[in-house]
Amino acid sequence: MIIIMKPGASRSNIDHVIGMIEEKGLNAHLSEGSQVTIIGVVGDKTKLAHSNIEIAPGVDHIVPVTESYKLTNKKFHPKDSVVQVGHVLIGPGTFTVMAGPCAVESREQVLETAQAVKKAGASILRGGAYKPRTSPYSFQGLEEEGLKYMKEAGETAGLPIICEVTSCHALETAVRYVDMIQIGARNMQNFELLKEAGKAGIPVMLKRGLSATIDEWLNAAEYIVAEGNSNVVLCERGIRTFEPSTRNTLDISAVPVLKSKTHLPVIVDPSHASGVRAYVEPLAKAAAAAGADGIMVEVHPCPEKALSDGPQSLTFSDFDKLCRDLAPYAGLAGRRFP
Amino acid sequence: MIIIMKPGASRSNIDHVIGMIEEKGLNAHLSEGSQVTIIGVVGDKTKLAHSNIEIAPGVDHIVPVTESYKLTNKKFHPKDSVVQVGHVLIGPGTFTVMAGPCAVESREQVLETAQAVKKAGASILRGGAYKPRTSPYSFQGLEEEGLKYMKEAGETAGLPIICEVTSCHALETAVRYVDMIQIGARNMQNFELLKEAGKAGIPVMLKRGLSATIDEWLNAAEYIVAEGNSNVVLCERGIRTFEPSTRNTLDISAVPVLKSKTHLPVIVDPSHASGVRAYVEPLAKAAAAAGADGIMVEVHPCPEKALSDGPQSLTFSDFDKLCRDLAPYAGLAGRRFP
Amino acid sequence: MIIIMKPGASRSNIDHVIGMIEEKGLNAHLSEGSQVTIIGVVGDKTKLAHSNIEIAPGVDHIVPVTESYKLTNKKFHPKDSVVQVGHVLIGPGTFTVMAGPCAVESREQVLETAQAVKKAGASILRGGAYKPRTSPYSFQGLEEEGLKYMKEAGETAGLPIICEVTSCHALETAVRYVDMIQIGARNMQNFELLKEAGKAGIPVMLKRGLSATIDEWLNAAEYIVAEGNSNVVLCERGIRTFEPSTRNTLDISAVPVLKSKTHLPVIVDPSHASGVRAYVEPLAKAAAAAGADGIMVEVHPCPEKALSDGPQSLTFSDFDKLCRDLAPYAGLAGRRFP
Amino acid sequence: MIIIMKPGASRSNIDHVIGMIEEKGLNAHLSEGSQVTIIGVVGDKTKLAHSNIEIAPGVDHIVPVTESYKLTNKKFHPKDSVVQVGHVLIGPGTFTVMAGPCAVESREQVLETAQAVKKAGASILRGGAYKPRTSPYSFQGLEEEGLKYMKEAGETAGLPIICEVTSCHALETAVRYVDMIQIGARNMQNFELLKEAGKAGIPVMLKRGLSATIDEWLNAAEYIVAEGNSNVVLCERGIRTFEPSTRNTLDISAVPVLKSKTHLPVIVDPSHASGVRAYVEPLAKAAAAAGADGIMVEVHPCPEKALSDGPQSLTFSDFDKLCRDLAPYAGLAGRRFP
Repeated sequence: MIIIMKPGASRSNIDHVIGMIEEKGLNAHLSEGSQVTIIGVVGDKTKLAHSNIEIAPGVDHIVPVTESYKLTNKKFHPKDSVVQVGHVLIGPGTFTVMAGPCAVESREQVLETAQAVKKAGASILRGGAYKPRTSPYSFQGLEEEGLKYMKEAGETAGLPIICEVTSCHALETAVRYVDMIQIGARNMQNFELLKEAGKAGIPVMLKRGLSATIDEWLNAAEYIVAEGNSNVVLCERGIRTFEPSTRNTLDISAVPVLKSKTHLPVIVDPSHASGVRAYVEPLAKAAAAAGADGIMVEVHPCPEKALSDGPQSLTFSDFDKLCRDLAPYAGLAGRRFP
Repeated sequence: MIIIMKPGASRSNIDHVIGMIEEKGLNAHLSEGSQVTIIGVVGDKTKLAHSNIEIAPGVDHIVPVTESYKLTNKKFHPKDSVVQVGHVLIGPGTFTVMAGPCAVESREQVLETAQAVKKAGASILRGGAYKPRTSPYSFQGLEEEGLKYMKEAGETAGLPIICEVTSCHALETAVRYVDMIQIGARNMQNFELLKEAGKAGIPVMLKRGLSATIDEWLNAAEYIVAEGNSNVVLCERGIRTFEPSTRNTLDISAVPVLKSKTHLPVIVDPSHASGVRAYVEPLAKAAAAAGADGIMVEVHPCPEKALSDGPQSLTFSDFDKLCRDLAPYAGLAGRRFP
Repeated sequence: MIIIMKPGASRSNIDHVIGMIEEKGLNAHLSEGSQVTIIGVVGDKTKLAHSNIEIAPGVDHIVPVTESYKLTNKKFHPKDSVVQVGHVLIGPGTFTVMAGPCAVESREQVLETAQAVKKAGASILRGGAYKPRTSPYSFQGLEEEGLKYMKEAGETAGLPIICEVTSCHALETAVRYVDMIQIGARNMQNFELLKEAGKAGIPVMLKRGLSATIDEWLNAAEYIVAEGNSNVVLCERGIRTFEPSTRNTLDISAVPVLKSKTHLPVIVDPSHASGVRAYVEPLAKAAAAAGADGIMVEVHPCPEKALSDGPQSLTFSDFDKLCRDLAPYAGLAGRRFP
Repeated sequence: MIIIMKPGASRSNIDHVIGMIEEKGLNAHLSEGSQVTIIGVVGDKTKLAHSNIEIAPGVDHIVPVTESYKLTNKKFHPKDSVVQVGHVLIGPGTFTVMAGPCAVESREQVLETAQAVKKAGASILRGGAYKPRTSPYSFQGLEEEGLKYMKEAGETAGLPIICEVTSCHALETAVRYVDMIQIGARNMQNFELLKEAGKAGIPVMLKRGLSATIDEWLNAAEYIVAEGNSNVVLCERGIRTFEPSTRNTLDISAVPVLKSKTHLPVIVDPSHASGVRAYVEPLAKAAAAAGADGIMVEVHPCPEKALSDGPQSLTFSDFDKLCRDLAPYAGLAGRRFP
């Protein structure tokens, strides 16, 4: 931590700050410049967590030097992680394709979709049983019944399954059925849920919040890992910007940024990022080219009749084409597909 | 709902869309322009919720005509609501000041603060017992113990109390102690929590999500009201933008926009919006001038030592000055202060 | 400037950075922490402008300590400036109301508007003769003919006039007619125009760019002042965010932020910020309450027929009401109105 | 254009709007729903440009149906354009690599860089002679002298050259030296410059404004094409968001969105989008995978000493590696490289 004093800071202002630092058993290093004085803090800065030095008299602002996330930080854990979900390994060398309907609507729908996506090349089956919907009047999901259909569909097709949970209650139920849980964008900072997911020990895919910075996202992941569960995968799904052509704006740079900041695997969701079926394929290819460890895409037997997110869902035949066209990009990126 | 066809849409594309509409018992009105054809839907459009017309062949895009929130919508409920919290009325004619520490830290802290803010002019005591913190290593709150201190402090000072809840579990506990619950920005779309808050029947202050549009916010409020709880107050607390000078960007326009879209009262939180103590007073005045029904501000006996949000907290003397300087602005706006 | 080294930076990495600093005649102060080493630079950091230390081996990132704008910086020029436009003083103690049509459409229109706004309380007449329009097919302005009408209208009504210039060519012409030029949001970083406006010596109102940070804005103002023209007024006119209810989002916090960072006067434009006539009055009051030195609003004899920005323009009677309702807010803020 | 009336709109409100439409010789189609009435406008809506129907009594809002850009619109010009710059064809089937220093600093620097990038695979040489810099105290470019060096370097290496122009004056000079001009992000809505670039007839690369929507960008391109110059290439260079890890956020979705909305070629600039050297390669690959027609990257003989944008510049050896690694991605996308 570095403290930047105001140009007119007095000697006693500076001494007061040094006192705040030394009182906690830390050392202060002074740099007196022509215009401003800078004070560097040496030692364990967490001891200063409750000293609000930025409002001490004469202080202009403070600059943190190290990130607050530790367990998820590549600086301290340089080796890229591999997360195992059923028999599937997510991480270096593989390209994981998670596919399935946005919402589980019926037993037939998921059974049929599981077969189709497995055949085309998917490695994990996705499907929502608990749906976070903007309006209370939209379809809210089949809940536990949906989880049962997913489990059956996954077992029949030989695919591990992933389902979103939107509350601690849903989490408790889901762990009995699924291989991986998803924490969605709207719950990225639902800290109770993060802690419970950490305790549950099950693999977790944590989506980025609609307007979360990458550092906030890694801090959210830290909540899970700090409970002893290091099986965390991150999923970039688009951020909120001013551009209305797409539902969200896919932050493709997040892939290399995450690869430099954390050891956790990174998945891209081009369906939610764009909200438009025609853009899913180019964005999926971009994800592979940028170094992602996989993608998650929405597939539906009949998108025109989907109860949720139809406009961004691929048909079986779209998805089959996607896999065929995407495979060589994953190959170029040095990854086994699927 | 209006459907805009593509320039080259064929007769059979148009007939297919008309069929999708009529199949649900609705009527289609056709406008054939020189370049494009437009189809208006007449009837209860919720019947079309699961027909994804936007991906039917030949369709360019669809335009919704009416908002999905109904109970919170001023179009259907034109009279401004008054929400009662203890003996305090929030709404037209009053200017409500909620004040207190960001986090409850000790019994003494809240007792002392309650007396000070009451004397200066506050009408409701705030204080956080469950803290949503970006990092798992930050202070997380005293939980039920904190609620007990708050209850005692409120009773002693004669102020109703408001506390944030961050989970359904916290909600269950809190309703036994508090007069109003707060649902924070990070939980604005924690739909499970919204539903439970609706069922609990207790007055709710719903903060705007960090990047929530006003329509999404009103849909979130609709979740609470749809459960039968119409005691909802909205709180603008700044949105996320690219500007780094303030912690968030106070969307002051949200006040008149909400006043035109909904009958629910609107509170402004200048502390979280700016994150800087010196900006709290000008923003509080701006809130009163723009037509807000009140403000929520953070006050601490010693901001330099606050365990959370010290840099934006007012001292007792700052808060006393704020109330004195703010009162004439509330008066000009036709409101009783406090 | 402070240089933060990576955790694994070697001794020779550190020595290389120190060498880069000392080579320019500056001093390096070393703080060796438990995890990272920090190097403070003491001396005139502009000498390092072309040393890209951030990409030297072992460097994590650099942190600037002082702002790059100097002449507009309150740290070095603490006294608030007053800018004189004709007989009007903009700055502490006054509340300036600039009003008039978005675009000059005819001689009659501006003469009539000048009389109406003067009578209601405006102190400066605004009107656009060069219009920056999103589409090339929209009305582009009357150019020099419009300036002539404005000059006549201003003289008749006894009001100084302000007109936007969109190019160096327009600037050359405009200085012969107007009392103050406006540089619009889209040209905030048209550096050629800024320099020419600086050389012209005429008072300049510089609007904030659609997505400019406050520091970028002050750097843009620095371009004008660095040419010897210190008659610069800043105008907050809304920034671009994700919220669609208003044309832009008025950053009301920019008023107190600017008041703490610069000595230049600050005007707020609620018409462009909101794009909606009904929101102009509450936002104008908020501007006065937050400490602005004045407002700029659009007024038109018949908004329904305005060639530009009709939906946000006030009628004469709206504007008259605005001035009457706004005056006591300006008075509370300690300012003479008009 | 569609007009949505308010729920309580009266018969006379509706008749007034119909009158406004018919007065211009257009037809109004009425759809009376259970809650609201909708009025569709049939005919040439540009006739309504100066009728501000949105503020007529009883009108809720209006919805535009067709885009205001026509010549750049794929709906009316479905065939993808090819823009020729010297002997280089930009468009379907080719992948164009523009490379060179951010700023021209000396004759030796550009001659050396031209040889190196040509050898590695670049097809066009870039270099800035007029630099738009945030601070007036930063290096502003060599101007005409820089253009001369660029011309010599391009001729020697056999590469066409592109240079940014920041004013009409710079444009006049530049057309005598360069093969293509660039209009930068800060000047995307410098409409005078756009018109002059249109009249000049020279190929133009138009970068996206920092916070421009794709529709605003296409309207800006329309300014150039409307003057008779259809040799326009668009360049996505990152947009401004809240995320601080990268200088801007590359909107990779803009590539497929533009491919669906316009026939103009699309280039991606990963250097400005990220601002970080290490992210240039993954983003360049993502651009190729998403369907871009090429990239523009910054290359410098010694980035540590670059006068502008050193941290994002590649060394010769970085660039050589980039070309080798990128070529197979361009190949997979069906494009000749270089």
